[in-house]
Amino acid sequence: MVPRKRTDTDQADSPVCRTRVNNRAPIAGRWLPVEVGNSILARRVDGCVTVIPESHTDLLTRPLFGHLATIRPDGTAQSNPVWYIWDGEVVQFTFSTKQQKHRNVLTNPHVALSIQDPEDPYRYLEVRGIVETVDPDPNGGEFFMKLNTHYNGPFTESLYPTEGGIYTMRPTSTSKQGQ
Amino acid sequence: MVPRKRTDTDQADSPVCRTRVNNRAPIAGRWLPVEVGNSILARRVDGCVTVIPESHTDLLTRPLFGHLATIRPDGTAQSNPVWYIWDGEVVQFTFSTKQQKHRNVLTNPHVALSIQDPEDPYRYLEVRGIVETVDPDPNGGEFFMKLNTHYNGPFTESLYPTEGGIYTMRPTSTSKQGQ
Repeated sequence: MVPRKRTDTDQADSPVCRTRVNNRAPIAGRWLPVEVGNSILARRVDGCVTVIPESHTDLLTRPLFGHLATIRPDGTAQSNPVWYIWDGEVVQFTFSTKQQKHRNVLTNPHVALSIQDPEDPYRYLEVRGIVETVDPDPNGGEFFMKLNTHYNGPFTESLYPTEGGIYTMRPTSTSKQGQ
Repeated sequence: MVPRKRTDTDQADSPVCRTRVNNRAPIAGRWLPVEVGNSILARRVDGCVTVIPESHTDLLTRPLFGHLATIRPDGTAQSNPVWYIWDGEVVQFTFSTKQQKHRNVLTNPHVALSIQDPEDPYRYLEVRGIVETVDPDPNGGEFFMKLNTHYNGPFTESLYPTEGGIYTMRPTSTSKQGQ
């Protein structure tokens, strides 16, 4: 991928909001891995909001597939296509709590989502952030079916009627390419 | 993304080939971050080859875009669309050595590439692996232009004539979904 006109909000737009994490120590106190149902995985303490570049918000609102980078408990990388939904403040995903992705975010809630424009493959948005909460998907998979509708998906009922999770990521920084 | 028919070769196909890594210690001796030009970042010592599922090799040979998960020096995740090429044994990428991705793989060579079938978004391949070598792209960007040709890209010369790198990833495990 070609880095023309790539920009990164990490330092440019919101240095004060940056959540610096080092695996070995200073992360403690900013987030705490917990089980589904207790809900709080991580919470930003500074009250800042990471702004998505307006030129690229369509990549969050259109029913495109994203690729979610997570970090496995052994410290190696994982990448999977995902459904997502954006409410203007946080990005939400659904997985089964039996999936490896679930174990990954419980161990390390730092994730990154990249979304490519299918009409222009050299235009993309990357949103890095922290999975703040994991909540049970209520009523046999209500959230799964909301995403299924958003994506015009093929399902008539949730694949995770009992073990579905709602994963809520708060963006901490973005990068983009293209106009 | 829906985990129907998902399989993982991690343990099923090649347990003996697994390269288990823990960020905190046992990785030492298996790989060593070095500068471009010295070339060896990591090398598997067991002589095993991770087999790509035959049903999904088309996703490696077609000129599709992949999303590459890397791990930043602060231990957080990054995801970017990438060009790639597969020779039947290793996957190769090109970046500029001035990009963050370069710094990431020098710090932690464990990466993951996910590729979705544009004709069937519920079919995908994930290849996890280790960037074994980083070599300078010779002759003003010969490798960049090879990828540009493979992707029918818009470039008439390399964007990285002097600082281009050839990143060679050896697969260590795969996962897939769909037929």
